[in-house]
Amino acid sequence: MDGVRSDVKVVESPRRVRISDAFLRLFALAFTLVAAVVVGVSKETEIVPITITPSLPTLHLQFTAKWQYMSAFVYFLVSNAIACSYAAASLVYSLAVSSSFNQDAVVLVLSILDLVIMALLFSANGAAAAIGVIGRDGNSHVQWRKVCDMFGGFCHHFTAALVLSLIGSSAFLLLVAFAVLGLHKKPK
Amino acid sequence: MDGVRSDVKVVESPRRVRISDAFLRLFALAFTLVAAVVVGVSKETEIVPITITPSLPTLHLQFTAKWQYMSAFVYFLVSNAIACSYAAASLVYSLAVSSSFNQDAVVLVLSILDLVIMALLFSANGAAAAIGVIGRDGNSHVQWRKVCDMFGGFCHHFTAALVLSLIGSSAFLLLVAFAVLGLHKKPK
Repeated sequence: MDGVRSDVKVVESPRRVRISDAFLRLFALAFTLVAAVVVGVSKETEIVPITITPSLPTLHLQFTAKWQYMSAFVYFLVSNAIACSYAAASLVYSLAVSSSFNQDAVVLVLSILDLVIMALLFSANGAAAAIGVIGRDGNSHVQWRKVCDMFGGFCHHFTAALVLSLIGSSAFLLLVAFAVLGLHKKPK
Repeated sequence: MDGVRSDVKVVESPRRVRISDAFLRLFALAFTLVAAVVVGVSKETEIVPITITPSLPTLHLQFTAKWQYMSAFVYFLVSNAIACSYAAASLVYSLAVSSSFNQDAVVLVLSILDLVIMALLFSANGAAAAIGVIGRDGNSHVQWRKVCDMFGGFCHHFTAALVLSLIGSSAFLLLVAFAVLGLHKKPK
């Protein structure tokens, strides 16, 4: 009887892990996709009146905020696009080989790739957040002035994208954590 | 004979994992400690001559670069200090319980904590790198001028700290990867 119970455990544990695995990949795919799209389509143009002296007419200068203008935002968008593509590919791959003979090797390779993508996403979130804080508050020590008072819409979009990307990154973190937990549960 | 060989495998695999584990924790501890110290002690004061009009005498203004002046640098230093303290604590703990009965649970808990610290460090590296890029090159679109031409020494120290922190973060990444690999190697 002990032998039979042990066999049941071996079959059940990977199945439970795989369902949460597929759900988390879908979750990560959706959130990183929306984060990339929100930043990609965000563009704000503002016309700012500038008065040099009261005797001269007021100048109206046009300023535009775009993700291409800041390297941290480019890195953020590209990282989310890579994470999103990887989530899609890994979801399809993990479902396709679910009944394959070398399933253990697939879980292992995907866990290591999840880890690398997670590191990429967290560094991109850090980069985007650091620039976002300067954009919102400025920094008087280096005389970098805040820009979110001028480009409020762009800053709101970007904050939303950052939150979405953080949720996507957390999904990758959970994928790796579940892989460690799942592989840890060896049949006794 | 088969039963004996299987027992030997069970003992050997965690032992090999544990030696690389201790080495990587020591490695991460050293690199994050030096990164935190390098940023912590970096301070540069420059006296800049400013000429308003040729008829007035030149003003000599004093500017100082310190990690406290930029939130991303504070985050970077605090994250490296946390990672360094955790690496020290986890090294002592993992060595202390190496012969304990519940070693599997310890490996599991440490792997999850390694993962969280890794995410923290990578986001801190991203934040510091994003500010570093602006400091080196400036950004004409938001009129944030570069400051590394004035504070060359501070920027060099900071670049060194960033590289050290990246190596420390990679040690945490390897710790998690080895945990996945180590736990994956179930006795056949």
